[in-house]
Amino acid sequence: MSFSTAPDRGIGWFARLAAILGRAGRGPRGRVALVGAGPGAADLLTVRAVRLLQQADVVLHDALVGPEVLGLVPPETERVCVGKRRGAHRMTQRDIEALMIRHARAGRRVVRLKAGDPLVFGRAGEEMAALEGAGIPFELVPGVTAALAAAADAKLPLTLRGVASTLVLATAEGAEGTDPAHWETLAAGGATVAVYMGRSAGQRVRDRLVAAGLAASTPVVAVEKAGRNERRIFSGVLDDLPVLAARADIDGPTLILIGPAAALAATADAWPLAPLAAAA
Amino acid sequence: MSFSTAPDRGIGWFARLAAILGRAGRGPRGRVALVGAGPGAADLLTVRAVRLLQQADVVLHDALVGPEVLGLVPPETERVCVGKRRGAHRMTQRDIEALMIRHARAGRRVVRLKAGDPLVFGRAGEEMAALEGAGIPFELVPGVTAALAAAADAKLPLTLRGVASTLVLATAEGAEGTDPAHWETLAAGGATVAVYMGRSAGQRVRDRLVAAGLAASTPVVAVEKAGRNERRIFSGVLDDLPVLAARADIDGPTLILIGPAAALAATADAWPLAPLAAAA
Repeated sequence: MSFSTAPDRGIGWFARLAAILGRAGRGPRGRVALVGAGPGAADLLTVRAVRLLQQADVVLHDALVGPEVLGLVPPETERVCVGKRRGAHRMTQRDIEALMIRHARAGRRVVRLKAGDPLVFGRAGEEMAALEGAGIPFELVPGVTAALAAAADAKLPLTLRGVASTLVLATAEGAEGTDPAHWETLAAGGATVAVYMGRSAGQRVRDRLVAAGLAASTPVVAVEKAGRNERRIFSGVLDDLPVLAARADIDGPTLILIGPAAALAATADAWPLAPLAAAA
Repeated sequence: MSFSTAPDRGIGWFARLAAILGRAGRGPRGRVALVGAGPGAADLLTVRAVRLLQQADVVLHDALVGPEVLGLVPPETERVCVGKRRGAHRMTQRDIEALMIRHARAGRRVVRLKAGDPLVFGRAGEEMAALEGAGIPFELVPGVTAALAAAADAKLPLTLRGVASTLVLATAEGAEGTDPAHWETLAAGGATVAVYMGRSAGQRVRDRLVAAGLAASTPVVAVEKAGRNERRIFSGVLDDLPVLAARADIDGPTLILIGPAAALAATADAWPLAPLAAAA
């Protein structure tokens, strides 16, 4: 047997991975693994995540988990999209938990696959509580969260001595709400703020942060489809954020990085965030 | 050829990975990849990181990158520990940058391997600037940062609706310094705060956060050697943090998670953080 597509150092790589996998063995039945799928590229999954996908009896995945990652699931494995798509019929969070528990009680090896890291904006807390309550054993497999993938794409140091001492991960959801303290926190000097799911809320994020004291000229980098081959990088300032919602050509998941460190992105292929018409 | 240690679904897994790797090919010479090694377990590296290690001509790694990960580097590959060990002779940051550039200029494929994620407290910003200045092409490979691995170990939701809307990654280093605003930010309600490299600074972290307004009874989980088989989990409250520095039996890298979400760790195998003597 030969691997015609193997890299030029031959199978040393496979033998080493096989050793790791062999030690780990195949897990017991009737368990759930809450697994981070990373940002979207198949080779940004962890080795452990790939192994668990390979060994699963059933994979329950979010809509955000893309085809490249799902290609790692063997064709004979049952695969259920439990994701919430706008407009389409969707499972509630309770439905998802019940399905997970039902499969585990039937003795299956269940992988609950979540984009990024399961414990960061992934509602894994609710699913862990449901599994605990049902007495189902479970494990967590961390993943590369979108902020890290976006920063790698843009070659942007999330922390840097004298520039950014702290990294804050937040969602735009709070921008709708009742918690101005939240935004004052985000606007505190020196942090790099990563806003998840922020594309359509660009105006609100901008308004809240400026109201909380951040300069409208604070550097911003936005990465659409971070961690994937087709990712696009946009750079600008806080005042440009409303453009994200308005531009029809930007429609993928978009991660926004805000703060002085965003000015240091070393990538040469960023588009300007503001449209040309903005100068008019 | 057979893989006696392969998992029971045979080599489907390897064939799939081979396809990914084959598409990627071996990168061009004279380049640097700044690669996240993840928290320490060999199977918590990304697939891309393992491939780059396999294809490298030289690997420059930090002292924090452990033997399990280094076992993925082929024996014939040059390996240099550029890490800073307390007490021992050490390379300066400038030395590391110069070495990286020298190897790349000699036409080698260089992997600069950093614990966790390269862009989070990894000084990759300085290294990217040096590479830019020298005209050396480079890429970034994100990794699983310690906070995510620690949370997975402790089964602790870093964010949870109504409990923690934000995750803040910080270091204890700021505790020495001149920036109280930093600590007021960390103490803002609702966030989960992950403190890197915080073990020996437990007293300072506790004092600063309490002075900034966080309750001394705020839940805390500390994970020593997060993401590794030998990891240990400790739980307590903010007032227990000085114990971390005082207990001689805790001496590995320790990640501290602070905030209301820390009370929700679903792990049953946590040690109490306070020593028995604390009740006396």
